[in-house]
Amino acid sequence: MRHAVILAGGSGTRLWPASRRERPKQLLPLAIDDEPMIATAVALGRAVADQVLIVTAESLADATKAAVPDVEVISEPVGRNTAAAIGLAGALIAERDPQATIAVLPADHHVRDREGMAAAIKTCLDSAEKSDVIALVGIPPTRAETGYGYLKMGPGLAEGARPVLRFVEKPNRAKAENYLASGCFLWNAGIFCLTAKRLLEELRMHLPKTAMILRMVVQGNPRELYEQLESISFDHGVMERTSNVVAVPAAVGWSDVGSWAALPEVRGIEKGNTTAGTTCVVDGTGNVVMSDDETLIAMIGVSDLVVVKAGDAILVVRKDQAQRVKELVEAIGAQRLDRYL
Amino acid sequence: MRHAVILAGGSGTRLWPASRRERPKQLLPLAIDDEPMIATAVALGRAVADQVLIVTAESLADATKAAVPDVEVISEPVGRNTAAAIGLAGALIAERDPQATIAVLPADHHVRDREGMAAAIKTCLDSAEKSDVIALVGIPPTRAETGYGYLKMGPGLAEGARPVLRFVEKPNRAKAENYLASGCFLWNAGIFCLTAKRLLEELRMHLPKTAMILRMVVQGNPRELYEQLESISFDHGVMERTSNVVAVPAAVGWSDVGSWAALPEVRGIEKGNTTAGTTCVVDGTGNVVMSDDETLIAMIGVSDLVVVKAGDAILVVRKDQAQRVKELVEAIGAQRLDRYL
Repeated sequence: MRHAVILAGGSGTRLWPASRRERPKQLLPLAIDDEPMIATAVALGRAVADQVLIVTAESLADATKAAVPDVEVISEPVGRNTAAAIGLAGALIAERDPQATIAVLPADHHVRDREGMAAAIKTCLDSAEKSDVIALVGIPPTRAETGYGYLKMGPGLAEGARPVLRFVEKPNRAKAENYLASGCFLWNAGIFCLTAKRLLEELRMHLPKTAMILRMVVQGNPRELYEQLESISFDHGVMERTSNVVAVPAAVGWSDVGSWAALPEVRGIEKGNTTAGTTCVVDGTGNVVMSDDETLIAMIGVSDLVVVKAGDAILVVRKDQAQRVKELVEAIGAQRLDRYL
Repeated sequence: MRHAVILAGGSGTRLWPASRRERPKQLLPLAIDDEPMIATAVALGRAVADQVLIVTAESLADATKAAVPDVEVISEPVGRNTAAAIGLAGALIAERDPQATIAVLPADHHVRDREGMAAAIKTCLDSAEKSDVIALVGIPPTRAETGYGYLKMGPGLAEGARPVLRFVEKPNRAKAENYLASGCFLWNAGIFCLTAKRLLEELRMHLPKTAMILRMVVQGNPRELYEQLESISFDHGVMERTSNVVAVPAAVGWSDVGSWAALPEVRGIEKGNTTAGTTCVVDGTGNVVMSDDETLIAMIGVSDLVVVKAGDAILVVRKDQAQRVKELVEAIGAQRLDRYL
């Protein structure tokens, strides 16, 4: 059977004040359809797989179950990065269904063309089953983005699964421009498929301690063991160390919604601005203006600004500095204003 | 007896969203002391006069009485600018106390040195009583302000009452700089003293229809007459047409608080910004950031911006465009969002 594993342990702060400790990004309705992002991820999982399993943090389990009530949710006792989360899900699935194939999906990304993404994931699942590879979805870059990891491919970016030559960390501006111009690079969307067997084999080979501990965890041993797991991403711990990785290009309008600056991709632009809720923008463009209730946000003569009212907090930041929200959140914590986080 | 007349009919929109139709600027606590501005004006009136009388609009009478419960309040049936309001108060006072001297005070200005202002007004009252002049308080300019009217004086700006040679409308930047450099100009603070007799005489001479109608109004004739009053300011209708006007210079830190850009003068600057309520400003200066409740306003990497949360609305405008709030308020009305005004 095909299984979708949705990674929903994120506690991202870059979308504060909408995103809070108790209600991180994947539980927010950021897109026009007003559906929590995790519900959209579950729908994608159901479109490509027979079973859907969500991995989240214990502190988010209840809110996650409330957001998608009819999906199985397992929770990590402590966060140990994606290698542990994916390994836990894979070990559980392998116990139940040794012939399983797994599609790993983030809970908090946005895809404009959902059918196109589902088709690409199915191509990945086919590859994983046929050739026992790890098959990633790769996004043909549309700009010199410095916030994403890249996949170096052979020239041409033909359709279907092709070998990944190298994983590339978030590049600087000059490198990103080269990658875009070369036509040999894809964005790493963090979506990939592999068989449960291959997953466990990769862990045994590249993260043997992780593999051993996870085996004990799923066999019912104390979950305190989980704390001993190495905190490492699946990309670093496995992907970059193994061979036999392929990628399927999919020009589907994907975004990781990594900051408020990504909201125009997610919600579109109307009359020059991206707005939600009650707003009035006079003589200004390129703004992201969001109010989560009847509070009016009114602006005049201001451009390229992010203004977000969510709950009991208001954020103001330049759109080109939207990644600094993380720094702001730290300052708020340091000023003993934790109750706003 | 000496009487203070406080003009409190303003419905200014330039301090929206704090200032609303039902709660204009004079009813707001904008200064650090958290007192409504009109209460501060009443305290000033009491410091210089035996009696205090407030003139306001009918729609604001209840809110005004609530803000300063122990002061006499009269209200205009319709707004007819300052000549009518001052004339109405003067006619009433003259009925009760024919030998009265009157100090006219705005309800919504800010004065840093309140004792200095009271002393200047007392000098004006003395002049009015001794020499039967109209005696203005003039503020020695501290910058080339284009938002204020000016008084052209003889050279030197010596202490005490000196003749006003000419009233000057709000100048452009170049003229304002000349005025500042010349040392012969004062800001017109809209504060002046004269006897009730002189007031009625000036009205009879320069605005005879106004004088006649007001006489009928105070003699108990229908207030519908009030609607027939000419809408003209006391400055235009009387001051600029009469002779015998003097001014007393008073360097007392005065501001008409004409827009949010004036808030730093009123509340001061701390760590580079002017703030009120719960705020967190990282890496930014010159901002005016005000929250009227527990809502946190958090900003990073933004300077010279006005961000005000008041009630159910949030304003964002560049500080150097703060006068455009009026335009924004019109746009809000045009978008059928009147309920926010």
